[in-house]
Amino acid sequence: MRFTAASVHRQIVAVLEAWGMPAEPARITADVMVDTDLAGIDSHGVSMLMMYDSLHAQGRLRLAAQPTVVTDAPGFSVMDGGHGLGHPVAVAAMDQAIAKARVCGVGAVSVRNSQHFGAAGHYARRAALAGLVGIATSTTRHPAVSPTGSVAAALGTNPFAFAAPRAGNPFVLDMATSVVAMNKVKVYSFEGKPLPDGWVTDAGGAPVTDAARAYALLEESKASLSPLGGVGTESGGHKGFGLSMMVQILSAALSGGGSPWSGGDHDNVGHFFLAIDPAVACPGVPTTDLVEEFIAAVRIPGDTVLVAGEVEDRCRAERSRDGIPMPDPLVEKITEVCVRAGVELVLA
Amino acid sequence: MRFTAASVHRQIVAVLEAWGMPAEPARITADVMVDTDLAGIDSHGVSMLMMYDSLHAQGRLRLAAQPTVVTDAPGFSVMDGGHGLGHPVAVAAMDQAIAKARVCGVGAVSVRNSQHFGAAGHYARRAALAGLVGIATSTTRHPAVSPTGSVAAALGTNPFAFAAPRAGNPFVLDMATSVVAMNKVKVYSFEGKPLPDGWVTDAGGAPVTDAARAYALLEESKASLSPLGGVGTESGGHKGFGLSMMVQILSAALSGGGSPWSGGDHDNVGHFFLAIDPAVACPGVPTTDLVEEFIAAVRIPGDTVLVAGEVEDRCRAERSRDGIPMPDPLVEKITEVCVRAGVELVLA
Repeated sequence: MRFTAASVHRQIVAVLEAWGMPAEPARITADVMVDTDLAGIDSHGVSMLMMYDSLHAQGRLRLAAQPTVVTDAPGFSVMDGGHGLGHPVAVAAMDQAIAKARVCGVGAVSVRNSQHFGAAGHYARRAALAGLVGIATSTTRHPAVSPTGSVAAALGTNPFAFAAPRAGNPFVLDMATSVVAMNKVKVYSFEGKPLPDGWVTDAGGAPVTDAARAYALLEESKASLSPLGGVGTESGGHKGFGLSMMVQILSAALSGGGSPWSGGDHDNVGHFFLAIDPAVACPGVPTTDLVEEFIAAVRIPGDTVLVAGEVEDRCRAERSRDGIPMPDPLVEKITEVCVRAGVELVLA
Repeated sequence: MRFTAASVHRQIVAVLEAWGMPAEPARITADVMVDTDLAGIDSHGVSMLMMYDSLHAQGRLRLAAQPTVVTDAPGFSVMDGGHGLGHPVAVAAMDQAIAKARVCGVGAVSVRNSQHFGAAGHYARRAALAGLVGIATSTTRHPAVSPTGSVAAALGTNPFAFAAPRAGNPFVLDMATSVVAMNKVKVYSFEGKPLPDGWVTDAGGAPVTDAARAYALLEESKASLSPLGGVGTESGGHKGFGLSMMVQILSAALSGGGSPWSGGDHDNVGHFFLAIDPAVACPGVPTTDLVEEFIAAVRIPGDTVLVAGEVEDRCRAERSRDGIPMPDPLVEKITEVCVRAGVELVLA
């Protein structure tokens, strides 16, 4: 079944407002979630509604929260999300980083006391759509990734996103700093495929290749994903571990957030946003032309080279035309969320 | 054989001055190179002197170049290295990024028309030693890395470094965005060890596991290293490819540098430096304490977890005490460089 982006948007807004979120942040959150579904990042769009429903039911979300600016320097601010959903504060923070970059050439904002903000790439891309280079990172709620030298689930999947303007759609890298995102393990489980060696290790140090078992253990932090680069140092696992620590430091040490799972009643997710405005930072430099030149240089004739963002662009074009596909079990779960929230099902 | 850091420093300064580099940039370059040897990054310290000798002999280095500021915004500048060695302009650029961060909270500098600058981590660490968070990236002179979906050597090993202040020595991540640095292939060749599958692929698409053959082919760009994450997308090779493109964009699109190997007589290496001053950016946030807290959280009891920078710190302590070890063939090659430059051998 496919549904129009407009109806998915209406559905999300209806649920969020029923939970007590004011109209404007509800609209912004739905904008981000629907764009994520259009881009084909099905794990981070409307399918997150069930997780948000659960957090809301547990009293872990303050949906009426107003993001506040805690400190403000010419090129950098710290914001506080007030334990609301992450999307509205993330949009406000990236917009503030962009505004600072318009003056200083570069601008950055770190955010504490936030929650899940969807896909990091959305915010980096927001900067690139405005003609700027953007970076977005976030800590995540669930310890699932091992540091190099251990198999303990001690880190989140800590996503990192980078975007740059192109002549057409922007370059958008959006990656978990683990070897794969947790969701990829779930997809292998749906497909009944064994996991490649080196993705998931149980608490005793044994590889887990049964995807369903791996996902169940990961959910309880009784197994861990390897960092990007894999187990040990041979093929660069220490690099993925280092990138994960970097995301943690940018998102949670510069914001004062701390580990998302050490904060008691709330998850205290932290984010970091950076924007560079080439028009101010390096006037006279043909940044966008050079980005296109670098991309042309890796388009090897006869090979299929897709640069970051292009798969999502194709999906965005197709789904904007044909609607957002949703499997029946997802529609059923959204229906249950709507019933609990007391709102009408408007998916069409 | 071991040599004191002071004598290695004197030797480098003598050679650089004989080549025509003024005293101050020669001292700065020697500072960076010796610190790199002390840290155990043997591939990027004094052993680079032979490559610089060759570039100098080919007339590809303007050793008397004075770095200039091309454009200057409150938080960002573009500098031009004038085709000199990269170390002096890189130190000047990071110092300028730090100075901007002291005012704006964040500061960045991109550099064009530069050359090899040694180890990226040195410059990120320079920010961290001053109490700031630092990032340093660079393009590299030699096409050696394949984009995901091809086996063509179309990208450099494009290093990325990130550093953050700690209570003691800083956190310093310094990584090639390829699965391994080219030098690692050379080390396997010295040790007569076969390469793991997925590191090097020849132009026909076949894996190369003979390390000596792989290195020879890589030197001619007739084979390629995989990006971090390996061949294809399964274990995240597209992430390493994306990170490599990011380094290229930051270092060479924001500086106007372009690809280092497309520039005719000179290599036109580009760099990027970013600094964030927590004291200005997020006053009141205990950034360093939080970094220590995150590191404590990944020190799993019973496991050996080393975070980025700790291996180098141990080496720095040991070599500062006992001297810098150099294999005989390296000493011979340095001797030849000294003879060609007409300077006395002062290693002791």
